[in-house]
Amino acid sequence: MFQRILVANRGEIALRVIRACRDLGIEVAVVYSEADRGAPYLALADRAVCIGPGPATDSYLKIQRIIAAAEVVNADAIHPGYGFLSENAHFAEVCRTCKIEFIGPPEAAMAQVGNKDRAKQLAKKANVPTVPGSEGVVHTDEEALRFAAQVGYPVLIKAVAGGGGKGMRVAQNDATLATGLAQARQEAEAAFKDGNVYLEKYLDKPRHIEIQVLGDKHGNVIHLFERDCSLQRRHQKLVEESPAPNLPAQVREDICAAAVRLVKTANYYSAGTCEFLVDKDNKFYFIEVNARIQVEHPVTELVTGVDLIREQIRVAAGEKLRYAQSEIVTRGHAIECRINAEDPSRDFRPSAGVVTKWQPPGGPGVRLDTHVVTGYRVPPNYDSMVAKLLVHRPTRAEAFATMRRALREFVVEGIHTTIPIHQEIFQTPAFIEGRVDTTFIERELLTKKA
Amino acid sequence: MFQRILVANRGEIALRVIRACRDLGIEVAVVYSEADRGAPYLALADRAVCIGPGPATDSYLKIQRIIAAAEVVNADAIHPGYGFLSENAHFAEVCRTCKIEFIGPPEAAMAQVGNKDRAKQLAKKANVPTVPGSEGVVHTDEEALRFAAQVGYPVLIKAVAGGGGKGMRVAQNDATLATGLAQARQEAEAAFKDGNVYLEKYLDKPRHIEIQVLGDKHGNVIHLFERDCSLQRRHQKLVEESPAPNLPAQVREDICAAAVRLVKTANYYSAGTCEFLVDKDNKFYFIEVNARIQVEHPVTELVTGVDLIREQIRVAAGEKLRYAQSEIVTRGHAIECRINAEDPSRDFRPSAGVVTKWQPPGGPGVRLDTHVVTGYRVPPNYDSMVAKLLVHRPTRAEAFATMRRALREFVVEGIHTTIPIHQEIFQTPAFIEGRVDTTFIERELLTKKA
Repeated sequence: MFQRILVANRGEIALRVIRACRDLGIEVAVVYSEADRGAPYLALADRAVCIGPGPATDSYLKIQRIIAAAEVVNADAIHPGYGFLSENAHFAEVCRTCKIEFIGPPEAAMAQVGNKDRAKQLAKKANVPTVPGSEGVVHTDEEALRFAAQVGYPVLIKAVAGGGGKGMRVAQNDATLATGLAQARQEAEAAFKDGNVYLEKYLDKPRHIEIQVLGDKHGNVIHLFERDCSLQRRHQKLVEESPAPNLPAQVREDICAAAVRLVKTANYYSAGTCEFLVDKDNKFYFIEVNARIQVEHPVTELVTGVDLIREQIRVAAGEKLRYAQSEIVTRGHAIECRINAEDPSRDFRPSAGVVTKWQPPGGPGVRLDTHVVTGYRVPPNYDSMVAKLLVHRPTRAEAFATMRRALREFVVEGIHTTIPIHQEIFQTPAFIEGRVDTTFIERELLTKKA
Repeated sequence: MFQRILVANRGEIALRVIRACRDLGIEVAVVYSEADRGAPYLALADRAVCIGPGPATDSYLKIQRIIAAAEVVNADAIHPGYGFLSENAHFAEVCRTCKIEFIGPPEAAMAQVGNKDRAKQLAKKANVPTVPGSEGVVHTDEEALRFAAQVGYPVLIKAVAGGGGKGMRVAQNDATLATGLAQARQEAEAAFKDGNVYLEKYLDKPRHIEIQVLGDKHGNVIHLFERDCSLQRRHQKLVEESPAPNLPAQVREDICAAAVRLVKTANYYSAGTCEFLVDKDNKFYFIEVNARIQVEHPVTELVTGVDLIREQIRVAAGEKLRYAQSEIVTRGHAIECRINAEDPSRDFRPSAGVVTKWQPPGGPGVRLDTHVVTGYRVPPNYDSMVAKLLVHRPTRAEAFATMRRALREFVVEGIHTTIPIHQEIFQTPAFIEGRVDTTFIERELLTKKA
C-alpha cells in the first residue's frame, strides 16, 4: 500500500480523498492555490503545498508544479479527483515517468475513451449500442429514407459543419424528412458555405443513465449499478439518484452488462462511469466514458455500501477488487443534490464570498460532503459547487421526504445557493413520479418562471 | 396516521422525533422549558410550546403541563423520547384518558417490566435466564454452600437491606464463602441493623449486550439484533456498537430469541430493548427491559436500515410492522460515541455554556445526531449529552478508522467535551481487539491516569 498520497485537487473532492486516506491509515498531502490558502479542509491533511496563483491554469492544471509538490512531500501516488487533470492521459504518463502512481485508469484506456471516434469504435467492438447515425454525409433523399426506415422516426438532420442549431431539423416522417433535408442543406450552405448534412436517430426527451464500474489490474471488472442523472441544467447535473426510477429490471441488467463489456474491451481499471441515453422505449445508447471518479459517486456508495475512493486507491496499489459481482447488492434509494454557490433568481450567477453562517442538516439518512464551514470564503475562481447533500432511505418516496427535510434544515447565509431550486424540484409532481428526462429542468421549472 | 404529534422532550431526541415526523409528513409540535427557549431545533417544528421553568420537575416532568400543551396544539399523539416521562406508565395512562395516543408500549407491559421482581418473573415464564440468586435470605452456611455448588464460583453475598457496597462480598471458594458470609452479616447488621444476606452468582467482568425489539398491536414481534454497550463509566454508556465483537453466532441467535420470547410474553409492542449481561463463557443473563427508544438506537438503524422512530410512530397508529423477521438483515458495522459537554480532565464535570464554534465531521460513513449549532448555549439543567457521533462501515476495523477520523475532524470551542476521551478509547488495544466488558473504561483508561 502507498506510504503517502498527494491530492491534486481542491474543495470537497480534495477533502473526500483526504478522508479516504485517513480511513486507510495512509499519510496524505494536498496541493492548494493562493485562492484556497487558509481553507479549513487543508488542515485535515498531514501537509499542504501551495502550487501557484488562483487561476487553475497557473496551479491546479500545471502538471510540473503538481509533480514538484509530489516530490517535495515524497508522495508515491497522486489522486487527481475529478475535473482539472483527472482525465489527462499525458498527466498520467508524466506521473508514470516520475515513478508516481496515478490513481486512475491506465493511460491507453484513458486516451481511447477520451476520443469520441475511438470510443464509438470501442462500443461497436464491445457490441454496445450507440446513437445510430448515417455513415457520413447523406447525399440523396433515398439514402435518407432508407436510414429513417432502418432506425425509425424521429430522425435528426445535422449539418456536417454545424453548430449552434444551424442546419438542424427534426423529421417525424417521410414527408417532413424530404422537406427538412432541403431546408437544412439550404441553411447549412448559407451559414457555413457547406450544405452537407448527415442523419442521426433523434432521441426525444431521453434519460441520462450511467453505470458505475470498478476494475482492478488483474482483469476483474464489476459494475455497481446505475445512477439516473437526467435532472440537468445546461448539461450540468443538478440531482442524481439510484436506482433509476421506472427502469425495467431487464433494461437495468442489460445496460450494466453493456458497461462491463465496454470497459473490459478497453482493458480499463480503477473507477469509471459509462454514460448512456435511454429513450422512451427503454432502448439505450452509449454516449461516453468518464475515466475518473465522478461528483455523484456517493450516490452509489450509499446504495451499495462500497467506498469507491478507497477501492480506487486499493486498485492503484495493485490489490485485487474486494468484491465479486454477486456481492454488489443495492439497499434502498439514494439521492444527491448538488448545492452550488449560485443565485437561481439571477440566472444562476455564481455567488462567491464569505459564508457567514453554515448550519448543515443531519440525522438519519443524511450524508453531507462539503469543505465549507462558517467563515469560509468561496473563491470566485473555480466551480461553484459548495456541498453535496445526500440522503439514503429504504424507498424513493422516503428519500424524497428526507431530502425535503434536509433542504429545509440547511441554513446558509452570506452567499446565495441553489437550495431554493432544489426545494422546488422536490415538489415537482413529474419528478416525484419519476418521469424524468434531460429536458426536465428547463421544461418544468425554468420556462414556467420565465 | 396521526395528524399532529407533540414531542414531550428536548435536545437531540426531540430533534430526532421532529425529523421523523417531517419524513412522515406529519405535523409536529415540541415542548420546551424556559432554559431551552430559543434553541435552534425548536424552529424546525411547526410549533413550540413553553411548559415552564428550567428544572425538569417544573416542566419536562410535569404531566399536566405536557397534556395541556398537547391540547393547545391539538396533538393526537405524544412521543416521549427517552428519559423524563418515557417509562412512566401513569403518564401513558393519562394520555389514554385524554384520548391522546402515547407513542410507546402498552401501560400493562410498561408496569410489568418496570418492576424488578415482576420482570424477573416474566423472564422465568418466558424461559429466559436471569442472574441466578438464592430464593430469599440465606440463613445457614450449608444453604450457601449448596447454592454455590449449584451455580459455581464466584458468588456474590449481598445484604438484603444493602446499598453502596455495604454488606457485599465476593466469594471465590467454599472457605472464603464461609468467612465472607460472617463478615457480610456483621457489616450489614452494623450498617442497616439487619444482618440478613442473600446470594447471587457473581459475573466477573461481564459484557453488556442488549437486543432491540419492535412489536406492533397485532401481536407481531421482531428483533433487530444486538448492540454491545459494555463501554461504560459509572453505568453511563460511552460507546455502543453493532454487531457485538467476538460474539459466537449461536449465542447471538439465542439472546435474540430470548428477547423476542420475553417481550411476547409481556404482550409488548412499540420499540424496546432487552438488556443482558454476558459472562466469559458467553452465558447470558437478562437484566431489564428498557420500555422506550434508547439513546443508542441509531446504531441499529445504521446496520439494519430500519428507521426505529418511524416504526414507533407507525405502530402507535395501529399499523402492522413493515418488516418480517427474515427481512431484518444487518450490513457492516456501526459505532456510536456519546459526545457529552463534560470535562474529562476534571472528573467529567458538566461543562455548560455557549458553544462558540461547532464544526461537525461529515463525509462517507458518518452520521451526526445533534441539536447543537455554533452559538448554542448548553443549559446546565439537563443531561450533558450534546451529540451522538455515529459511523457505519463494512467492517469493524474500518468503522474504527472512520470514527478516529471523524473525532479528529470534530471542532468544538467554548465548552469542554468528551471528544478527547473517545480519541483515547479508540486507540486502546483491548477495545480494538474487541475484548470489552463493563469495567473496561475504569480499568483501561481512568485508573491508569489516576
